Amino acid sequence: MSGTNSERELITGGPVVVLVEPQLGENIGMVARAMANFGLSELRLVAPRDGWPSDKARAAASKADHVIDGAVIYETLEAALADLNFVYATTARVRDGFKPVRSPIVAAETLRAKYDAGEKVGILFGREKSGLSNEDVALADEVVTFPVNPAFASLNIAQAVLLMSYEWMKTTMASKDETPFQAVDQTPATKDQLFGLFDHLEEALDARGFFRPAAKKPKMIDNLRAVLSRRAFTAPEIKVMRGIISSLDRFSRKHPRGTGNPDDFDD
Amino acid sequence: MSGTNSERELITGGPVVVLVEPQLGENIGMVARAMANFGLSELRLVAPRDGWPSDKARAAASKADHVIDGAVIYETLEAALADLNFVYATTARVRDGFKPVRSPIVAAETLRAKYDAGEKVGILFGREKSGLSNEDVALADEVVTFPVNPAFASLNIAQAVLLMSYEWMKTTMASKDETPFQAVDQTPATKDQLFGLFDHLEEALDARGFFRPAAKKPKMIDNLRAVLSRRAFTAPEIKVMRGIISSLDRFSRKHPRGTGNPDDFDD
Repeated sequence: MSGTNSERELITGGPVVVLVEPQLGENIGMVARAMANFGLSELRLVAPRDGWPSDKARAAASKADHVIDGAVIYETLEAALADLNFVYATTARVRDGFKPVRSPIVAAETLRAKYDAGEKVGILFGREKSGLSNEDVALADEVVTFPVNPAFASLNIAQAVLLMSYEWMKTTMASKDETPFQAVDQTPATKDQLFGLFDHLEEALDARGFFRPAAKKPKMIDNLRAVLSRRAFTAPEIKVMRGIISSLDRFSRKHPRGTGNPDDFDD
Repeated sequence: MSGTNSERELITGGPVVVLVEPQLGENIGMVARAMANFGLSELRLVAPRDGWPSDKARAAASKADHVIDGAVIYETLEAALADLNFVYATTARVRDGFKPVRSPIVAAETLRAKYDAGEKVGILFGREKSGLSNEDVALADEVVTFPVNPAFASLNIAQAVLLMSYEWMKTTMASKDETPFQAVDQTPATKDQLFGLFDHLEEALDARGFFRPAAKKPKMIDNLRAVLSRRAFTAPEIKVMRGIISSLDRFSRKHPRGTGNPDDFDD
């Protein structure tokens, strides 16, 4: 992973994020950062209390400048939604009314399907203190809510945006197991490689009289092999283990490697 | 949803959250809040830069006092992990080494299975500036990483804790569709209720000569019914619609309801 950020792919697009009457510039900045983290880029602000542009928002955005620079201000929520085909309202509270209530996963999948079909979609986030009003929610198509701790249900606006953006990004993943990178080698070694480790270790231990009394040797070897095979070692791991055994086997504390005096001449 | 927070269930427990050398008290507070939002409660701090307790942390925790009060300080990461059986390290970067790399969903499911089996489990989050060191990661069992925008991959520590806490909470959900509350009535109306709406509207329109020319009436009725049945109305929605039709049908702008002069006597 050498190289600067600018050499890596910048994902943009996705649902429009609409903030209704945001207050603190810091929160707007944190929203922009959360959006950028998960590939969203279109931010709309309805009547931000402290005006726009905002130095505090830019600072809190941690270089999500493409989101901050692209943010558009609207006087009313109606105007901010005018060109959208489908809109979710986020809320932590039960609402009277007939809007279907969706989980974040289902909402993200719904947004993805509509977006891929060419619809312009958006997600509506509420005021810092009070959340969205019933009038705001009435302008949306459906409601999305988060599975929160009942006694501690209030999410900050940037946290709510983060979760929805994250679920949006997850809709691009082929499976729930997919990760952006993988460890060096996740494939278990072949049995032949594992048996080579058994032989190597058992020979070195046998030479030291480890398997005593002789009658217990088969059981001891069974146990040893069980320990070594319980976790499926990868080929590189087996290489490391064999290096360890070789070192313990061939050198001593008194005559470490490089002293030209291997231990086996001492005994 | 009347009542105060204190009357609602406070979920606690879950994996231990371990912050390695956290710096800003605000960030520790945001972590505590994120944990509380999604039912985690055990916080451990390894060598917090600005000491502990922290007024800034408490303020930023937005009343997640049970997490702040329960936080325990350790001098070393080894000590903080000593009593745990299984630990994830969170990282945004590829690491050399043999740790399996998991998605947040798989990591949360793994933690849940081990937790339910009685293991003590934890999640390790890195320093604000640099993330976890390779030495930190080496003390964990597996690595978890988030599906982020490649050119904008850096998550703030509270955001990372939020996402893992959220995925943890989701493991308690019976299905991906589950939400903490539902709309008033999500069950589609019966066909009988829908046909009642058709009859009501068609009769009112027919009385006004809406279906003209007569030859086109069947096609017009088809279209009307298609519109009314495309989205599966619920029974309360049908009730609202029939109220609308009744009002339009029985009253006029000139003689609104309550004037004792229904429109049908005028015509």
